Amino acid sequence: MLSSEPGHGTLVLVPNALDFGSAQPCDLRAHLPLAVIERAAALPHWVVENAKTTRAFLKRVAAIAPLTAPLQSLQIVELARASATSADLDALLRPALQGHDIGLLSEAGLAAVADPGSALVARAHALGIGVDPLPGASSLMLALAASGLNGQQFAFVGYLPVPDEARAARIRELDALSKRTGQTQIAIETPYRNTALFAALTKHLAPATRLGVACAIGWPIGWCKTQPVSRWRQAAPALDERLPAVFVFQA
Amino acid sequence: MLSSEPGHGTLVLVPNALDFGSAQPCDLRAHLPLAVIERAAALPHWVVENAKTTRAFLKRVAAIAPLTAPLQSLQIVELARASATSADLDALLRPALQGHDIGLLSEAGLAAVADPGSALVARAHALGIGVDPLPGASSLMLALAASGLNGQQFAFVGYLPVPDEARAARIRELDALSKRTGQTQIAIETPYRNTALFAALTKHLAPATRLGVACAIGWPIGWCKTQPVSRWRQAAPALDERLPAVFVFQA
Repeated sequence: MLSSEPGHGTLVLVPNALDFGSAQPCDLRAHLPLAVIERAAALPHWVVENAKTTRAFLKRVAAIAPLTAPLQSLQIVELARASATSADLDALLRPALQGHDIGLLSEAGLAAVADPGSALVARAHALGIGVDPLPGASSLMLALAASGLNGQQFAFVGYLPVPDEARAARIRELDALSKRTGQTQIAIETPYRNTALFAALTKHLAPATRLGVACAIGWPIGWCKTQPVSRWRQAAPALDERLPAVFVFQA
Repeated sequence: MLSSEPGHGTLVLVPNALDFGSAQPCDLRAHLPLAVIERAAALPHWVVENAKTTRAFLKRVAAIAPLTAPLQSLQIVELARASATSADLDALLRPALQGHDIGLLSEAGLAAVADPGSALVARAHALGIGVDPLPGASSLMLALAASGLNGQQFAFVGYLPVPDEARAARIRELDALSKRTGQTQIAIETPYRNTALFAALTKHLAPATRLGVACAIGWPIGWCKTQPVSRWRQAAPALDERLPAVFVFQA
């Protein structure tokens, strides 16, 4: 429990399952601790990346723990896609200033990690609203653990540039950085560009650099594989352009 | 499910709870998905950071799901503390080559992320043994999410140097890197040095750099707070020297 100032509610960071976009979402108990599901069921106020997918999430919650109120009566507000002002964020946090807990939810994994939400969390700290991060998985960390690459020093570099030349330069820069420091590099891409990113990585990374690909990690159909770039050049994996992937490499 | 070569078992990365060292470990269902607890209960072979704490973990598992065999008959082997040879790792992975699944477990959170295990995972990839990372929390990611700092670009830099001058230089280097790139920096320390690391961070980071402290994250008594270094200089938190902490900063 992370303490708020007296009279304030808490901003509860609720992890989501990792199977966003799956046609067959499975029982939430495969993804989240039971206590997290029960805590989510008790929250009347939500600030979320997407209201529609939040309702789908709450239906999965309701299959396991009764919601505190009917789904249609819960207050679900979307985070603005553009940068929000302090006043916008304060409006979203008003229920917490009035003593109610608010759930923060993204479409998959942890809000505010490779996903929106950090500006809201920062504003909560500034207003003396406690922040409680409930335990849940990040696909970045599962991909890193499953890669067998250096987990003592690593960087998440987000999305790489899309234009060929800029992407090639960035890949070579990160490869050199990894070679110099031993730091593992973690990158993601929107699924329909995964094949292009994989091709660029295997073209521009050094042959001896180890590259791990984690596809649909945390899904029943997920897989991961790590080998030197020279081996990947002999046979590229079939990357389904509807599935999320995480790319991890160490020179 | 991540496929092994025919006839091979899988190396299953089993997340642990985050409350390692707590005098009152709580119900595992507060920390781990039920499906993960059930999968752990079914594993007859384990490679672990520490055999004693693994037995304590398996007792918590057994309170929820019956173990596949009595605890004393499970095969639990410790990872070597020193660097292991390929032959050492192959010996640890032998059950998987014979068709049995093996659980890999660290003392808290995810094995191979800021914890031992990555060399074993790398060897599994080399031998064609499938690797299955089960969903679980990393204290680093919970601390990052709860900090409100940039979650789109971040680096885990591990332990900082202990000698004063080297530590000061490293802190200033990371602060400059964060200022230049916007990358959030995440560091840890052994608990009894947390107060010294906090003092060094508030001394050597720029006054405007935002510093988040997450203490005993994922424990019932856990807390987190983010504010500018200039504010931390006015009042240092009471860091219990037996509790884990994660330090997160962004210039």
